[in-house]
Amino acid sequence: MARKVEEEEYEEDEGESIERVFEGQEVPDWKEQVTARALAVSALLGFMFSVIVMKLNLTTGIIPSLNVSAGLLGFFLLHSWTRLLDKAGIPGVKPFTRQENTVVQTCVVACSGIAFSGGFGSYMFGMSERISEQSGEVRDEDSIKNPSLGWMIGFLFIVSFLGLFSVVPLRKIMIIDYKLIYPSGTATAHLINSFHTPQGAKLAKLQVKTLGKFFAMSFSWGFFQWFYTGGKDCGFSSFPTLGLEARRQKFYFDFSATYLGVGMICPYLVNLSVLLGGIISWGIMWPIIEHKKGDWYPADLKPSSLRGIVGYRVFISISLILGDGLYNFLKVLTRTMTALVAQVRGMMSGPTLPISEAGGDLTPAETFDDQRRTELFMKDQIPNTLALSAYVITAVISVITVPRIFHQLRWYHVATSYVIAPVLAFCNAYGCGLTDWSLATTYGKLAIFLVGAWAGASNGGIIAGLAACGVMIGIVSTASDLTQDFKTGYMTLASPRSMFVSQVIGTAMGCVIAPSVFWLFYKAFGDIGTPGSEYPSPNALVYRNMAILGVQGLGSLPKHCLDLCIVFFVGAIVVNLARDLAGPNIAQFIPLPMAMAIPFYLGPYFGIDMCIGSLIRFVWDHVDGARAKAFAPPVASGLICGDGIWTLPQSVLALAGVRPPICMKFLPRATNIQVEAFIKSLP
Amino acid sequence: MARKVEEEEYEEDEGESIERVFEGQEVPDWKEQVTARALAVSALLGFMFSVIVMKLNLTTGIIPSLNVSAGLLGFFLLHSWTRLLDKAGIPGVKPFTRQENTVVQTCVVACSGIAFSGGFGSYMFGMSERISEQSGEVRDEDSIKNPSLGWMIGFLFIVSFLGLFSVVPLRKIMIIDYKLIYPSGTATAHLINSFHTPQGAKLAKLQVKTLGKFFAMSFSWGFFQWFYTGGKDCGFSSFPTLGLEARRQKFYFDFSATYLGVGMICPYLVNLSVLLGGIISWGIMWPIIEHKKGDWYPADLKPSSLRGIVGYRVFISISLILGDGLYNFLKVLTRTMTALVAQVRGMMSGPTLPISEAGGDLTPAETFDDQRRTELFMKDQIPNTLALSAYVITAVISVITVPRIFHQLRWYHVATSYVIAPVLAFCNAYGCGLTDWSLATTYGKLAIFLVGAWAGASNGGIIAGLAACGVMIGIVSTASDLTQDFKTGYMTLASPRSMFVSQVIGTAMGCVIAPSVFWLFYKAFGDIGTPGSEYPSPNALVYRNMAILGVQGLGSLPKHCLDLCIVFFVGAIVVNLARDLAGPNIAQFIPLPMAMAIPFYLGPYFGIDMCIGSLIRFVWDHVDGARAKAFAPPVASGLICGDGIWTLPQSVLALAGVRPPICMKFLPRATNIQVEAFIKSLP
Repeated sequence: MARKVEEEEYEEDEGESIERVFEGQEVPDWKEQVTARALAVSALLGFMFSVIVMKLNLTTGIIPSLNVSAGLLGFFLLHSWTRLLDKAGIPGVKPFTRQENTVVQTCVVACSGIAFSGGFGSYMFGMSERISEQSGEVRDEDSIKNPSLGWMIGFLFIVSFLGLFSVVPLRKIMIIDYKLIYPSGTATAHLINSFHTPQGAKLAKLQVKTLGKFFAMSFSWGFFQWFYTGGKDCGFSSFPTLGLEARRQKFYFDFSATYLGVGMICPYLVNLSVLLGGIISWGIMWPIIEHKKGDWYPADLKPSSLRGIVGYRVFISISLILGDGLYNFLKVLTRTMTALVAQVRGMMSGPTLPISEAGGDLTPAETFDDQRRTELFMKDQIPNTLALSAYVITAVISVITVPRIFHQLRWYHVATSYVIAPVLAFCNAYGCGLTDWSLATTYGKLAIFLVGAWAGASNGGIIAGLAACGVMIGIVSTASDLTQDFKTGYMTLASPRSMFVSQVIGTAMGCVIAPSVFWLFYKAFGDIGTPGSEYPSPNALVYRNMAILGVQGLGSLPKHCLDLCIVFFVGAIVVNLARDLAGPNIAQFIPLPMAMAIPFYLGPYFGIDMCIGSLIRFVWDHVDGARAKAFAPPVASGLICGDGIWTLPQSVLALAGVRPPICMKFLPRATNIQVEAFIKSLP
Repeated sequence: MARKVEEEEYEEDEGESIERVFEGQEVPDWKEQVTARALAVSALLGFMFSVIVMKLNLTTGIIPSLNVSAGLLGFFLLHSWTRLLDKAGIPGVKPFTRQENTVVQTCVVACSGIAFSGGFGSYMFGMSERISEQSGEVRDEDSIKNPSLGWMIGFLFIVSFLGLFSVVPLRKIMIIDYKLIYPSGTATAHLINSFHTPQGAKLAKLQVKTLGKFFAMSFSWGFFQWFYTGGKDCGFSSFPTLGLEARRQKFYFDFSATYLGVGMICPYLVNLSVLLGGIISWGIMWPIIEHKKGDWYPADLKPSSLRGIVGYRVFISISLILGDGLYNFLKVLTRTMTALVAQVRGMMSGPTLPISEAGGDLTPAETFDDQRRTELFMKDQIPNTLALSAYVITAVISVITVPRIFHQLRWYHVATSYVIAPVLAFCNAYGCGLTDWSLATTYGKLAIFLVGAWAGASNGGIIAGLAACGVMIGIVSTASDLTQDFKTGYMTLASPRSMFVSQVIGTAMGCVIAPSVFWLFYKAFGDIGTPGSEYPSPNALVYRNMAILGVQGLGSLPKHCLDLCIVFFVGAIVVNLARDLAGPNIAQFIPLPMAMAIPFYLGPYFGIDMCIGSLIRFVWDHVDGARAKAFAPPVASGLICGDGIWTLPQSVLALAGVRPPICMKFLPRATNIQVEAFIKSLP
């Protein structure tokens, strides 16, 4: 019967929006959003997450996204703290607001992000002697740079803030003009809003309940899945849902609650573009190219070699991304310039650049939520000129100092990186806004390759490549992480200024905490980076090997790879042009090259997840549109956040050495017969 | 939006019952329910199903329940036929009624049931020389009886009708008085009713839609699961949902849509009793007994040997069932006698025995459906005296003729079997009504053991035991199958008399069709029953080995097995007494021994399925009771029928030699490491 009652309430509230629910609450001034207690909690969580990320860096090299966890734990700590003070009768405790919560979340992400982008398990450690020995090169002083606390902290301080400054102009383009989804950021915002929903709002209460229900389901599902992952290719994420043959080409539904949720809130066009990209690459192109093994590329390569099939995957997907990114970057730049020129000609106004007409795609009637959020988002601007000058100044310092840390790197290598980096940062933030994937490491690989080839083998190109990789990952990864956070801030009415300050503080904390934690591990466990040890750091060797390949130049690419790259680069630009020239009726059926490119490298499986989520949304919209509109976002957020939070206990279990007990395995029938016989023969 | 509309309709219709929907339709006279076209279709389907069952008999020995498929295919064939005639403009085509549909269904079940109960893959074939050679006995003419078309048809004709007659008095006790659920029968009835629902009934239409939706889901789920069952212990039915250790003791959720559905329509007490039985046996007793391996029973036995742990399982579960069954049988008998005496003393009335006060458990206020169904169910009675005399006459013929077919069997063996059989038939029909499991083969094993021991090794006890098994399975299996059908008939207002006639015809067809089909296989494939051949008939050897054990007598039982059997036999009677003596408030918390006994032998896994179904129902009842009441039966029926129908294409695939391509396997982490290494070493 309870259900009936809810339905009536829901009917009555139908027109209600999230921001109407919060309308009675005053949004605190930006300075009041960055409280001392928020920073204390951030430092605590930042340290905790850095330890987790570092240990994962050095064991498997697979790092989950932790920003949902940051939001949740931030809430619990601060909520408990304020309630405790309140109960103890201490007067003058300020209420804990959702803006403060967002500030904690973005600070923790900025801090712990450095434990990843610092490359302690990849490029930075790949420079060391220990890894060099494993790659079997001739010993060469020029190709080695052993870790040391001093230069690592210095390097991070010089490099990491650049990402931060490059995000500032992106922010408005991505969130207000392009109205990108940023699925994780949106989900985190729903979570934070739901924590702080005032009493009495009926629809909101129902939405919070729905979010909670799906959160619990998704978390439990993650927990349940964990038990069956006791080994490589074990568990639901290896389920050959469409058959073993399709699984081999990465076509399968992997039971990921996250991507089901992402599919439910992403536009249909994004989901279908991802699937289309997957079909073109893994369904058609890669099988054809693999068929040419021995002709187009040597047959005796390691499966992970960039000279083989992986090379096609990496470089073709990058070309597609670069084509799309460059087109959009230039489009935004042209419009900005035009507007700027018009403005300067007219009258001198404030320091912000009005480029709101750049929102090329669609400008639907704005809802109350949109209006209110945009209003607050635009209120506390960070002047673009400030960000630009900060970027230039930091870049200049960096161009001077980085070559002093890595003498193999010339100043012009660094300077070039800083010219290209904003374009790549734009690409990554854009792609991440569409599909939730950050491809920072892919851009890093590009830098290894290009700068390595430029510096050349004789001039310590290996170290130059790896250092350039660090510069690139630092900027590109920060760009997507922090734009994601800005989306959360947009939806929780957090001031852009408070978020920026919080990110600056978080980044500074990270530049000290991350190398210190690494140093602790490095000194405490003498055999870090040794295969077979507790901390084998598998990615370090992979990155070094890539650098070794890079110094051999473009000639080391497999056959026809460069041709294909050019075709796809041009293709991306043509498709974008077509989208802009065609009317919106036709444009809505033209796929997005950026969304298509991501499965080129990763495989189409997550596109299948997203399309299933999309299908659920589609059916729901047609069965009961009003209900779907109100409840699809909380359902999707619950799915994304539950799975996201599960990564935290999962990481803790991994760190504590608790491994899953069972392997759920999928074998062809014929192999199974042999395996059965083998198992019987075991003692 | 469609959903809203539905909801309003549903509100309006809330009080409506299924029989009110059908109220406008006249129920045809019983003679008009058994039409020529129905019998023709039955013969066709009966033959088809006999071929399927026979082939499964001879390959895996696992036979699915086909009565849902019979209902569905019967509908399609007759519906198409009448519509075809209608469209062709042929006048005077009688409308196809749901009663006619039920008649087809019961006739097909009666016919194809004989392909199973005839023991062509078990006891009957176990008598042959070919199987005897495999069991490694000394060759002995007395222990061999090779198959031959003549004696098989004769034996089946003598034996099979007894089951039919023994069902007649059970019918009313089980369905009207005890109000047992018979989950498959109920589900089939819902399916048939849904096919024939007249236009215009809103709730009914919604229910049909719900049934259809869950039918499709359950069928697709069955299909999906199939792909992953390419080997022993592969697939979802082997999923160690509660861990590998629990799986070893058969504690797991096996993703069976059927038992989820069964749990949704069975009373809570039944579900919890099954689970309790599972915990007592597989959770506590069997692990303790297995710990005594080497002490209580030899450690070097085959895992399937009745002298080891399997002996405890089989005999203790039979004791519990017999205790419960005997108690209920005697209770019904006493009440019947008392009523009979009272009636005879008063005035002479019709031939039926009014024992309606025997409905010991509960007599809730009758709904319109109950009233209407009971009225029609009681209208066309088959006189119990007729059934009784038919049973006695057939038994006498049988006692005379069966020892002529098997000279090793004495007349008193057969006579004793016929005295005991009705009690066991009662037990099996009762247990099946509670939990949907027919344990016919278990009773058959009891007969092998008892009669084998009685006849003794020197007098051809092996053949005697196997023949007695045939007599017993024939009666006991028919009892549960046909009472299940009577439940369907009850819910579709089919006349008991038309169903009885249909069953007689079906049984007669089966007695000819089943042996003929076997004979075809036997002659066409020369190597039937040979291990490693296409038709290894694995159960035939198992049954023969049981008979070999049987002739060695009670002494061959493992230690303390007999003591435990007595304890549980007495326990079942005590618990039943307690249930009858305690008030209904307490009795509702006392478990049912019959329901507890079934997992003793099979394992608790299906009890877990049922309890999950029960939990869903419980939550649903509390969230929205009215909706649950109206929609739980169609949901459950959809789940049961979808899974049931899937067995048909599954069987066809198996027969066509199409085997599932993938094995979903579950290995402990440590084993997985070894298996991984082994797979790598494969060419």
